[in-house]
Amino acid sequence: MGRGLFITLEGPDGSGKTTQMDRLEEYLHRRGLAVERTREPGGTLLSEAIRRLLLEPSYSPVDARAELFLYAAARAQHVAERIRPALAAGKIVLCDRFSDSTLAYQGYGRQLGAELVERLNDLATGNLRPDITFLIDVPVAIGLGRRSGGSDRLEQEDLEFHRRVRQGYLDLARREPRRVHLIDGTPSPDVVWEEIKGILDARLERL
Amino acid sequence: MGRGLFITLEGPDGSGKTTQMDRLEEYLHRRGLAVERTREPGGTLLSEAIRRLLLEPSYSPVDARAELFLYAAARAQHVAERIRPALAAGKIVLCDRFSDSTLAYQGYGRQLGAELVERLNDLATGNLRPDITFLIDVPVAIGLGRRSGGSDRLEQEDLEFHRRVRQGYLDLARREPRRVHLIDGTPSPDVVWEEIKGILDARLERL
Repeated sequence: MGRGLFITLEGPDGSGKTTQMDRLEEYLHRRGLAVERTREPGGTLLSEAIRRLLLEPSYSPVDARAELFLYAAARAQHVAERIRPALAAGKIVLCDRFSDSTLAYQGYGRQLGAELVERLNDLATGNLRPDITFLIDVPVAIGLGRRSGGSDRLEQEDLEFHRRVRQGYLDLARREPRRVHLIDGTPSPDVVWEEIKGILDARLERL
Repeated sequence: MGRGLFITLEGPDGSGKTTQMDRLEEYLHRRGLAVERTREPGGTLLSEAIRRLLLEPSYSPVDARAELFLYAAARAQHVAERIRPALAAGKIVLCDRFSDSTLAYQGYGRQLGAELVERLNDLATGNLRPDITFLIDVPVAIGLGRRSGGSDRLEQEDLEFHRRVRQGYLDLARREPRRVHLIDGTPSPDVVWEEIKGILDARLERL
């Protein structure tokens, strides 16, 4: 074959993504599989530099399309330099956020539209799609409350933004149910992990 | 009215663009016009930071599409934050390189194709096009010879790249003769300036 498996984790900050990434990585290692863990935006020198631009508050207000193009640039470099070579070497690539984040945050959250974002995603990735996506869903108030800093400084605009992001993710799960597995992120990490593990085991059997 | 004039200068490094930019700026100032001089990639804090990423050799090899998206990001921010507000204030915007550079260098030079690049340019600019473009054309050998460092370290690949860039510019001038003024950049700066000044004066009379 020479083609690995491309797994992404999606969901809002505060959904418990990082905890589940740790468990996924450890579990796959224990099964003796070659794992390449990475994240977006980031994963290469250039893409991490772009990430720093995106997170630097002194550049704000950043134009919504400029932001979208920066995510696309970081992704194009990441796919070309790291993800495709790892998959070609037969590895399991485990990526914290990928194209679906841009769809949810820029397409729905910033209201740039799903069509534009999906076109740019396809250009940036050369049509590479994940084999499995775990989408950890939590109600907006729970996600925001779990984030460091709490939700006290949030204004109504932020709430509406995060509601649109969640809606974008839920629409995606409805449109691509074979790839995107919607996971309830409200129970304990152990319960969430059992659900992810069950889906993963079934998929690994078919490898 | 409330709409200024958007003038861009295009051409390869070594074409004498900077000298002509200086003359244009001085001439317009002397005529008492409000001029906003800027450049691409750059012109805003974020766009200049993106420029530094593009020029930083330690990130190479940069994926051609990642590079294209970085130019688009820098341009989107530049148009939104600086060019559109200046034009709305009735100023003359004088820009060293703009969308046409991306068409020539990425579309033709890097062979990403004119159609893709033009689509991204339109997205980044919200369909803003220059009113006048001065395209200073020099044969590839002359342009490369004038650049600092000379042409001794150039390989055949570089020559082919620059030939494609020039062809992209010439195709553009043929397709958009009303906007893009093809200027012969081989004579002395004084002769080149007289040609530019003549075209500019005719355009300013119609303002």
